[in-house]
Amino acid sequence: MLVKGTHYRTVWMDNGSVRMIEQNRLPFSFEVHACNSVEDTCQAIRDMTVRGAGAIGATAGFAMAQHFLDPKQKTEDALEMIKRTRPTAQNLFYAVERVYNQAANSRKPSSAALEEAQAIANEDAEACRMIGENAARLLAGHPRMMTHCNAGWLAFVDWGSALSPVYAARRNGITPFVYVSETSPRGQGARLTAWELGQEGIEHAVIPDNASGFFMKNGDVDIAITGADRIAANGDTANKIGTYMKAVIAKEIGIPFYIAAPTSTIDFRCPDGRGIPIEFRNQDEVLWKSGVTEDGKIERILTSSPGSLAKNPAFDVTPARYITGIITEKGIVKPSELWELKR
Amino acid sequence: MLVKGTHYRTVWMDNGSVRMIEQNRLPFSFEVHACNSVEDTCQAIRDMTVRGAGAIGATAGFAMAQHFLDPKQKTEDALEMIKRTRPTAQNLFYAVERVYNQAANSRKPSSAALEEAQAIANEDAEACRMIGENAARLLAGHPRMMTHCNAGWLAFVDWGSALSPVYAARRNGITPFVYVSETSPRGQGARLTAWELGQEGIEHAVIPDNASGFFMKNGDVDIAITGADRIAANGDTANKIGTYMKAVIAKEIGIPFYIAAPTSTIDFRCPDGRGIPIEFRNQDEVLWKSGVTEDGKIERILTSSPGSLAKNPAFDVTPARYITGIITEKGIVKPSELWELKR
Repeated sequence: MLVKGTHYRTVWMDNGSVRMIEQNRLPFSFEVHACNSVEDTCQAIRDMTVRGAGAIGATAGFAMAQHFLDPKQKTEDALEMIKRTRPTAQNLFYAVERVYNQAANSRKPSSAALEEAQAIANEDAEACRMIGENAARLLAGHPRMMTHCNAGWLAFVDWGSALSPVYAARRNGITPFVYVSETSPRGQGARLTAWELGQEGIEHAVIPDNASGFFMKNGDVDIAITGADRIAANGDTANKIGTYMKAVIAKEIGIPFYIAAPTSTIDFRCPDGRGIPIEFRNQDEVLWKSGVTEDGKIERILTSSPGSLAKNPAFDVTPARYITGIITEKGIVKPSELWELKR
Repeated sequence: MLVKGTHYRTVWMDNGSVRMIEQNRLPFSFEVHACNSVEDTCQAIRDMTVRGAGAIGATAGFAMAQHFLDPKQKTEDALEMIKRTRPTAQNLFYAVERVYNQAANSRKPSSAALEEAQAIANEDAEACRMIGENAARLLAGHPRMMTHCNAGWLAFVDWGSALSPVYAARRNGITPFVYVSETSPRGQGARLTAWELGQEGIEHAVIPDNASGFFMKNGDVDIAITGADRIAANGDTANKIGTYMKAVIAKEIGIPFYIAAPTSTIDFRCPDGRGIPIEFRNQDEVLWKSGVTEDGKIERILTSSPGSLAKNPAFDVTPARYITGIITEKGIVKPSELWELKR
C-alpha cells in the first residue's frame, strides 16, 4: 500500500538483510529497520518492531532463510529460536516450518529457503488481496464498520485482512466509515489503523475501547470485522485482547461479527480455543504509554499510579458461537464449515 | 480516607472558599485546589478537577452556598450556571436544588444554604459508609472483585460507593483483590482507583479495559461492582463509558454485577435509561494522554495518528436486566425493586 505516494510492503528481504517498517515509531516517525542477522530479526519480532499475524509469519520465514544463507548455529537451534519469539500467532509456525522443510529437502538449501520465504510473503499479500475481493460485498452503501487493533496491511505483507475489504470497497466506489478502537495497551488501533486509513483517505474515528459497546448499542455500527492471530479447527479465534468483548456485544445486539484471515492462520491441529497459548507481555506496556509531545518529541509516560502492578494478556479467544463468518482468500465460511477449507 | 496518614475529604468548604483535592494531577502530585467564587467552582467541575457522582454533587451544593454567601449575580443565573457544568450526574441536580430550595425558603439564606450544603456533604459520606456496611458480606473469603473507573472516596465526599465494600471488608479482616480496569480515555481506574487502593494497602492489578472480558471468562473474577452517575426509576444505570460492556460480559458468564450508589443518584423522575442525557466530551481526551515522564515531569502526549479525529462519549447506559443488584445506604435491592427505596 501507499506511504506518502510510494508503494511499500511491511517486510521484505534485501541482499540477506530483513527490512521492515519500524512499527513502534509509527505514526510519529516513518522508518525502515534493517535486521542483518537471525538474532536481529528475532529481536524485532519480540519487541514488536514488526507485529501482526501475517507480517510476523513472513518475517519468521525470512529469518529462517537468513539462517540458511549464512548459518551461524545449528539449523535446529535457529528454528527453535525463531519459534520462541512469540507464542500465539499461527502464521509464525506455519512460515518457519515451510521454509525449514523446503530447505532441508533441497540440495541448495540457501536458495530453496530464500525462494520459499519469498513465496510465503507473496502468497500472504495475494491472500489478503483476495480477502478484500471476497468481502467487499459485505460493505454496501455507506457502511459503518468497526474494527479492533490493526489487521491492516501493516499486520501483513500488504493489503491486510480486516481492512482489505475496506480498501477493496473503496476502489469499487463505496465510502466506508470505520470506527477504530484505540486498542489499549499498545494502541495499535489509534496509532496504526488510524494512520493506514488516513494515508488511504478513508473516513474514520478513533474511539476508546470502552466506547465500542456504546456505538454498537446506539445503532451506529453495521458490521464488525477484526483479524485473527490463530483460528482453531472449530472456529474459536485468538485475536488481540478485547476482541472477545466486542464479539459478545455484537451478538447481543445483532450486529454481524466477522473474522478476516488468510487460511495460513488456521491451525487444524488445534481442535478448539483451549489449545491456543495466550502470551502475557510485560506489565510496563499497560502502565506506560508512548506518543509524541506537543513539540514533536517521542516520549514515554507513566499513566498509572506509581507502584501499582498490572496484568497484560495480549490476546483473548472468541468462541466460534459469537462469530458470524470467517473471511479467507478462498471465500467466506461459517466457523462450523472451516474444515471445508482444509482441502 | 487517609492520604499519607492524614484524613482528607474529597471536597469541603472553608471560609467561603470551596477546597478540593486536585484530581487531574493525581496520582503524580497531591494538591488542594481552592475555588474562591461560584465561577471558579463551576470551572473545577467542568474541567474535572473534581469528578465522580457524589463529589460533583457536594461541590455543586457548596457552589450554590457560595452564591448565597456573596451574591454576584441573580440566584436563578447562578443556579443555571451550576446546572450546566455537567449534564449526566444526578447528584449535581439533586444537591443544587436542595440548597436552592432551603435558602429560598429561609429568612437567612446564606447560613441556610451553607448548612444545607454541609448536610449534603455529610449525608454523602455517611451514605457511602453504609454502602460499605451493607455490601461487605458480598466479599467473603479472598474475593476477587472487578471495578471500573473510580467510584472510590475520590468520587464522593468520603468512603466511595463501589470501593466502600472493599474498605469495609478489609476492616473486617477480609483480604480482597481488585481488578482495576484502566478506564480509557481519562484513566480514572489506573490513576485514581489504583492510587486509593495503594494508599489503603489493598492488593490490586491494573488491567487494560480490553482485558476485563478475558479475566471474567478465565474464572478470575468473583464479583463486579461499579458506581453510577444516574439511575433511572427502572434500574437502567448511566455510568462511565465501558460499564455496559462489562455488565453484558458478566451476565454472559454468570458473574454477579452490582451497582453501588447512594439513593441520591436515583432519578425517580426518569422512567428509564432513554431519558438520561449522555455527555460527549472533547476529542482531545481520547487522542492525548497525560502522565509523568521517567524524570518526573507531568507531560501530555499524542497517542493517536496525527490528524485523525475521535469520538468521546463519557458515559453509557447499562440496561437493568444486566444488573444483579443495586447497593445503597438503605440496603441492596434488585433493579426492579428500586421503587421501594422511594419511601
